[in-house]
Amino acid sequence: MTQRHYVLTVICPDRTGIVAELSGFFADRGGWVDEADFFTDDASGKFFARLSIRAGDLDFEQIRAEFAEFAPDTADWKLWDTAHRRKAVILVTKEGHCLHDLLGRVGQRDYPMDVACVIGNHEDLRPMAEAHGLAYHYVPFPKDAVGKRKAFDEVAEIVDDHDPDAIVLAKFMQILPPDLCEKWAGKAINIHHSFLPSFMGARPYNQAYTRGVKLIGATCHFATTDLDDGPIIEQDVIRVTHKDSPEDLKRIGRDAETTVLARGLRWHLEDRVLVYGNRTVIFN
Amino acid sequence: MTQRHYVLTVICPDRTGIVAELSGFFADRGGWVDEADFFTDDASGKFFARLSIRAGDLDFEQIRAEFAEFAPDTADWKLWDTAHRRKAVILVTKEGHCLHDLLGRVGQRDYPMDVACVIGNHEDLRPMAEAHGLAYHYVPFPKDAVGKRKAFDEVAEIVDDHDPDAIVLAKFMQILPPDLCEKWAGKAINIHHSFLPSFMGARPYNQAYTRGVKLIGATCHFATTDLDDGPIIEQDVIRVTHKDSPEDLKRIGRDAETTVLARGLRWHLEDRVLVYGNRTVIFN
Amino acid sequence: MTQRHYVLTVICPDRTGIVAELSGFFADRGGWVDEADFFTDDASGKFFARLSIRAGDLDFEQIRAEFAEFAPDTADWKLWDTAHRRKAVILVTKEGHCLHDLLGRVGQRDYPMDVACVIGNHEDLRPMAEAHGLAYHYVPFPKDAVGKRKAFDEVAEIVDDHDPDAIVLAKFMQILPPDLCEKWAGKAINIHHSFLPSFMGARPYNQAYTRGVKLIGATCHFATTDLDDGPIIEQDVIRVTHKDSPEDLKRIGRDAETTVLARGLRWHLEDRVLVYGNRTVIFN
Amino acid sequence: MTQRHYVLTVICPDRTGIVAELSGFFADRGGWVDEADFFTDDASGKFFARLSIRAGDLDFEQIRAEFAEFAPDTADWKLWDTAHRRKAVILVTKEGHCLHDLLGRVGQRDYPMDVACVIGNHEDLRPMAEAHGLAYHYVPFPKDAVGKRKAFDEVAEIVDDHDPDAIVLAKFMQILPPDLCEKWAGKAINIHHSFLPSFMGARPYNQAYTRGVKLIGATCHFATTDLDDGPIIEQDVIRVTHKDSPEDLKRIGRDAETTVLARGLRWHLEDRVLVYGNRTVIFN
Repeated sequence: MTQRHYVLTVICPDRTGIVAELSGFFADRGGWVDEADFFTDDASGKFFARLSIRAGDLDFEQIRAEFAEFAPDTADWKLWDTAHRRKAVILVTKEGHCLHDLLGRVGQRDYPMDVACVIGNHEDLRPMAEAHGLAYHYVPFPKDAVGKRKAFDEVAEIVDDHDPDAIVLAKFMQILPPDLCEKWAGKAINIHHSFLPSFMGARPYNQAYTRGVKLIGATCHFATTDLDDGPIIEQDVIRVTHKDSPEDLKRIGRDAETTVLARGLRWHLEDRVLVYGNRTVIFN
Repeated sequence: MTQRHYVLTVICPDRTGIVAELSGFFADRGGWVDEADFFTDDASGKFFARLSIRAGDLDFEQIRAEFAEFAPDTADWKLWDTAHRRKAVILVTKEGHCLHDLLGRVGQRDYPMDVACVIGNHEDLRPMAEAHGLAYHYVPFPKDAVGKRKAFDEVAEIVDDHDPDAIVLAKFMQILPPDLCEKWAGKAINIHHSFLPSFMGARPYNQAYTRGVKLIGATCHFATTDLDDGPIIEQDVIRVTHKDSPEDLKRIGRDAETTVLARGLRWHLEDRVLVYGNRTVIFN
Repeated sequence: MTQRHYVLTVICPDRTGIVAELSGFFADRGGWVDEADFFTDDASGKFFARLSIRAGDLDFEQIRAEFAEFAPDTADWKLWDTAHRRKAVILVTKEGHCLHDLLGRVGQRDYPMDVACVIGNHEDLRPMAEAHGLAYHYVPFPKDAVGKRKAFDEVAEIVDDHDPDAIVLAKFMQILPPDLCEKWAGKAINIHHSFLPSFMGARPYNQAYTRGVKLIGATCHFATTDLDDGPIIEQDVIRVTHKDSPEDLKRIGRDAETTVLARGLRWHLEDRVLVYGNRTVIFN
Repeated sequence: MTQRHYVLTVICPDRTGIVAELSGFFADRGGWVDEADFFTDDASGKFFARLSIRAGDLDFEQIRAEFAEFAPDTADWKLWDTAHRRKAVILVTKEGHCLHDLLGRVGQRDYPMDVACVIGNHEDLRPMAEAHGLAYHYVPFPKDAVGKRKAFDEVAEIVDDHDPDAIVLAKFMQILPPDLCEKWAGKAINIHHSFLPSFMGARPYNQAYTRGVKLIGATCHFATTDLDDGPIIEQDVIRVTHKDSPEDLKRIGRDAETTVLARGLRWHLEDRVLVYGNRTVIFN
């Protein structure tokens, strides 16, 4: 997506004529739609749309102002100018495979984001971040509730300073408190090391080994106050056998975690993920 | 898709406003769009659309007549009334797994087609067809060119009598002559027992064994005069190992053939497959 | 496996020299091993083996008698003469896709079993069984406990009359009572319509829809008294999207159920599945 | 595989008793086998084995000397002491995703190799290598035959200085001359950006786009004088759609290249890959 585009996403009650109205809005302004995705959820009666319009001579602020006039009050919508590159803050603990993979993608310039900084509750991954020229903030997390809360406040301050489009929990082994889940709703993206809803809770690979499953997986989801229960963006699995120990499952599973997070995060950054309740619409 | 719908598919040159016009056409008539897919191919400048509209009170013939007025001459379009169930003729030789699978799906009423009849150039699969209450036409294929041509004429006559939406080559081991490829263009669907373009020509599983590949596959494609080279509708692969003999590959591959044909044919029957040149757009 | 083989499976405590002893036993008798699989489970210290020996001139009963002498008391072993074809009884309710698929495979003679009979607690699938020349036993299941128990006794009597190698629960929607689970331990094979341990209990596709997963799956497992919790033989998944309704998930999932059962059952019939605790070793 | 093991691999003509003899050899010396894989190729009459023995008190050199006595002349065998860590030289051009991924795995200490150095025919990836503390040798490749030959001689000198277990062509866009293919036979591992044998030759992603395939893939294989035709170690595929441009295919394909190379190379480093003719046995 090298060309500049304006990307509109809309969620609103479904009714007759809505596809025509949305596309008509841009047609009336000479806008060239080169991606248009629509979905109606029969169960909820909700309508979802994503339109990607070539920027051309159109003025972004004017289009946005006009669409704000045009859109009904019932619509939940966003308009994104792709010239405004997406910005992420990445939170880590000790395991570096997801961070390493994301930084590699960013470094190759084939990933639609800039990384504002990396925050870790251990020092282990500082060299990895700094090797990519990124600021690394070490925020230690004490075990006690008060200390942990202060640590989260410090993290939040750093995050909010950057006003990021994505807060990526790239194997960040601390549970976000409810107020941060709420503040960062639809932006905090977690990679969970199981094929949810299997093996919620601690040590999913050990659970998977004990249960004797033949496939293990990973799940990229929005962080919510219901731990492990946020809207799922992407999942995938890898085949394993009786030969694989819990340690093998961890190693094998890292490949699933890495690719699932990279895919899910890309879609989020490109505004391809629309959330309603506990479900997601993925326009990819 | 139990509710009655009208399904429009369009291929035409891309230009500004076309999504709005198409959706506006139905909005103006009170049509409720519940699936809308669009695609622009930058390389060719072609635009592709599929819209599914709830039939409601709309009169099909009137809508069709009005759309014929409305559509520009450059558009290649079709409008399908889902109340008009899709009809297929299935051609077979000796291997029955694809036929068996398709008849099972039809029998369970979860597949959007009726089978007009089965035609075989051997008698082997007559009992299978007849067990499902279907007429079976045995048309033997001699080895000589004249005899073969006469056999094809006989097949064509039976097929054309039914005016089917799909001519399914379900492991039919005879190569369609060019005139039939042309006559049945976009309707004759073949299942090829390899992951095309690998292993074109005879005995693909033996070729796959010799080459030592780690995955084997199957390809569902439209039959064209360029053998094994028609537009691909669907493909899939299955993992194999050094333990698998050519016979094992054949057996394992049958599962890929069966599911790939079932998926590809379903999309064709639901007008989700749009062809341009040697490529397909799949709105699924 | 057209050639006649003797297949030995062994589970015993691991110790030095055991691979040599097992293979030496056959070498001493001029036995040609053409498949040999071994596995040591470090956690339990258990050793697992499967050897496939060309029958050649070896006398089966003599080999079996000699191996009984040879094998230590701590070994749990079986010796199977592949000339003794495997026999299955299939239990069904109303959904026919798994039955249809298995009967197709048997009919094509590429599946290593004979079907002794089909038992159904509804009449729906009688025609399918009878079209394949199979006896169909209708055993209605009343809702009350006493009636249900009598029905199970009737089923058990029919099953046990055939002394089958596999009791296949091919979408049989009744829960086996504990005594039958125990009597048929290691022989009763169920296909569960979810990627266990996700979505245990009723209506897994509806649960999957509600949770918004991006892959649905199926699980082939041995039936045990812990419902949905028996040793897993095989699993697989299929990708779904936000477009798929619960009904779509059911339809799509049937393909996973069918192939997973067919694969898992084949391995069981070929003595490739060794169970310990709640885990399986699959020598495939 | 943290414990020290001795790993034996053998290829020899198949005959009665060979599994017993091999395992007997170690049993006689008190060797504890904890992985044992055997395979007989019926077509060629060849026998393949891999045994992993706990080192314990066994002396490696003595075992090797005794096995050399024991092994028949017809056997092609190797014995590896896992305490001797595997060493690789990595060759690159400009694309860094495979190098980046491998260095990440090595850095996480979950990959069984040390990297001796990285050689590149461009300077682009020097920073990536040096960030991981690795020597980077820049060897420019002129277009003329004489200059190219001299460049290859320089590369060969660097490689051979390290006597590596693997020469990894990690998107190295130069074709090895026949003498190097021969010298490095069974050690030079290439990642090819297509699902071979599809799309041999230049620009496979463009070929894939033109052909309209629905899955793209990557192939890890030994480099041989028959370009793109060496023994295949591992392959995998990723689903693509009509929406994906050739550029998209390249980007998506990089994920397949990365994981396929990482898997295939791991198996090679663990002596799990046995080659015969153009096929491989993978004991994984």
